[in-house]
Amino acid sequence: MRIALVGFGGVGKALVKLLSDKKKSLLTQGIDIRLNYVINSREGVYDPMGIDCGSLLKHVEMGGQLSRFTQGVNTPVSFETLLKNRDVDVMVEATPTNRESGEPGLTHIRAALENGINVVTANKGPILLAYRTLNRLAVSKGVHLCAGCTTGGALPTINAGIFDLAGSNIHSIEGILNGTTNYILGRMEQDNLGYEQALAEAQRMGIAETDPSLDVEGWDTAIKLLILVNILMNEQRTLDGIRVEGITRVGRDDILRAKKEGKTLKLIGRAVKTPEGIDISINLEKIGEDNPLSGVNGTNKAVRYVSDSLGDLTIIGGASGTIPAAASLLRDIINLGRGYRFSV
Amino acid sequence: MRIALVGFGGVGKALVKLLSDKKKSLLTQGIDIRLNYVINSREGVYDPMGIDCGSLLKHVEMGGQLSRFTQGVNTPVSFETLLKNRDVDVMVEATPTNRESGEPGLTHIRAALENGINVVTANKGPILLAYRTLNRLAVSKGVHLCAGCTTGGALPTINAGIFDLAGSNIHSIEGILNGTTNYILGRMEQDNLGYEQALAEAQRMGIAETDPSLDVEGWDTAIKLLILVNILMNEQRTLDGIRVEGITRVGRDDILRAKKEGKTLKLIGRAVKTPEGIDISINLEKIGEDNPLSGVNGTNKAVRYVSDSLGDLTIIGGASGTIPAAASLLRDIINLGRGYRFSV
Repeated sequence: MRIALVGFGGVGKALVKLLSDKKKSLLTQGIDIRLNYVINSREGVYDPMGIDCGSLLKHVEMGGQLSRFTQGVNTPVSFETLLKNRDVDVMVEATPTNRESGEPGLTHIRAALENGINVVTANKGPILLAYRTLNRLAVSKGVHLCAGCTTGGALPTINAGIFDLAGSNIHSIEGILNGTTNYILGRMEQDNLGYEQALAEAQRMGIAETDPSLDVEGWDTAIKLLILVNILMNEQRTLDGIRVEGITRVGRDDILRAKKEGKTLKLIGRAVKTPEGIDISINLEKIGEDNPLSGVNGTNKAVRYVSDSLGDLTIIGGASGTIPAAASLLRDIINLGRGYRFSV
Repeated sequence: MRIALVGFGGVGKALVKLLSDKKKSLLTQGIDIRLNYVINSREGVYDPMGIDCGSLLKHVEMGGQLSRFTQGVNTPVSFETLLKNRDVDVMVEATPTNRESGEPGLTHIRAALENGINVVTANKGPILLAYRTLNRLAVSKGVHLCAGCTTGGALPTINAGIFDLAGSNIHSIEGILNGTTNYILGRMEQDNLGYEQALAEAQRMGIAETDPSLDVEGWDTAIKLLILVNILMNEQRTLDGIRVEGITRVGRDDILRAKKEGKTLKLIGRAVKTPEGIDISINLEKIGEDNPLSGVNGTNKAVRYVSDSLGDLTIIGGASGTIPAAASLLRDIINLGRGYRFSV
């Protein structure tokens, strides 16, 4: 498979590292991935024979500019070059997320699909704002839009919905989709910390951001849940009209009260099919031991599906960071390229 | 896709029911499955235009013989007919499991693959005894051998290893793979029952068999773990030389001792890659709350993978019965036929 990487930040670099580290082991599985383009917002590298990923990383780590990488074609390379040449099978879109406009990812993805190029993306913005339209475009062009990395990263939320529940009808999706809030709630419970104290600790450890509102007010959970609903339940919902609760008002009393009942407080994103449509909410819930989500601790994340013919399925994971995120892009690339080849 | 079903017991019938119930919803997803053959050990039905699944079920439920089903071709139909005609894409092998000889499944699977027919099977015997040889045969014929139903049924153990961990290297597999023993241990822990008492209860409830040895002595766990190792770690191990512990000698004291340490006793199948090879064992283990397997209760099953680039992944589920088993056959059929189509 011939790949173009658009966006060369942390996750993009991690993908190049994985492609370098895993080249041999992938080849033994019959998976031949060639990176032909790396393009960032200012410049790019292009080699139709495949860029040497290890050398490129060294070059960049030494402070070298992309366009000064000597291997490959020595002409200015941009996103337009890629569209003009149309000589890749997959574009990996890994530019920064913009939740309001979706740009520049939205434009990249639309243009690639229109030109008959499959897309694998880590970019939440375009998927949140326009999945259905983009997916229709992909289908009409006979290509695919894979967004497995946008919800949970290494945790195979979308992937499981597509492959592990194939042929079943998903009745409900329930998840602990945000590791930061799960960590904070866990610290409050374990050591009887107040919310502000636990948040400060999480910030010191780099688990929570300086402005933590996206996480602690429940919006990150809501966005991820919406993406799951739109992809796996074939909907086109937006954040409008969705009840979103965060964890900012949780007190020690709430935690203790739950504990006394043998339960634990979790921030749960929930989507349930009802006769009136899909009911979506993000709520603090007291979860009992009978729910497999109760054991999801630390920065772990999890999703639980209830389906008609395949029953309950709970998936717990949580490797976070650029390498697991890049590995989930690689997973989409491989599943996309797998075609009819089922065996490992 | 044109399907032949070989083996028409509980799971085979449930698959025919699912194909009937889900025909419409699968068609809206672009999945067109036609059942062209149903063959049991004595007789068969064949219709190259696709058997009406609902009518066939009614006919059989009324006590009708397969060969007397009036729709379709009115000549005697056997497994040989299928091989001679070679007019299906997939053979679903669902004859009873024989762990010693693998027959008649082994012969069916080998013959289908040799004739360029993909195989989806629920039959543990041939997969346990000859997966690697059969898979090589499949690859050499350009077809596929899917065995997702053989380990965990609805729990997507093999499926997750193939699709959810694509591109990663699995370091270890750890699982609660037998629902019966997990139920017995849970009852002993919850209500301070003795082993014999808990076993008797499980037998009364139909959870344990009259001769429970395969489950309680750990062999069922061992067989499932071996299948996972052979498929996902590309090995060809047998039961020889594997340490297998069961639950028959567990006393109330053991349970209480674990409880005092804040732990729970579980029968764990474990395979770990070491420099000397893969270490495989089935052991009673005290599991702490930090291990997501500790929350796997009742007849639920679970598997936990540790991988290089995608981190930890734990999958918990447990729908059991003929419908979930058939639904896991259907899952393999759909993933097999999906080819390049990634989106749902």
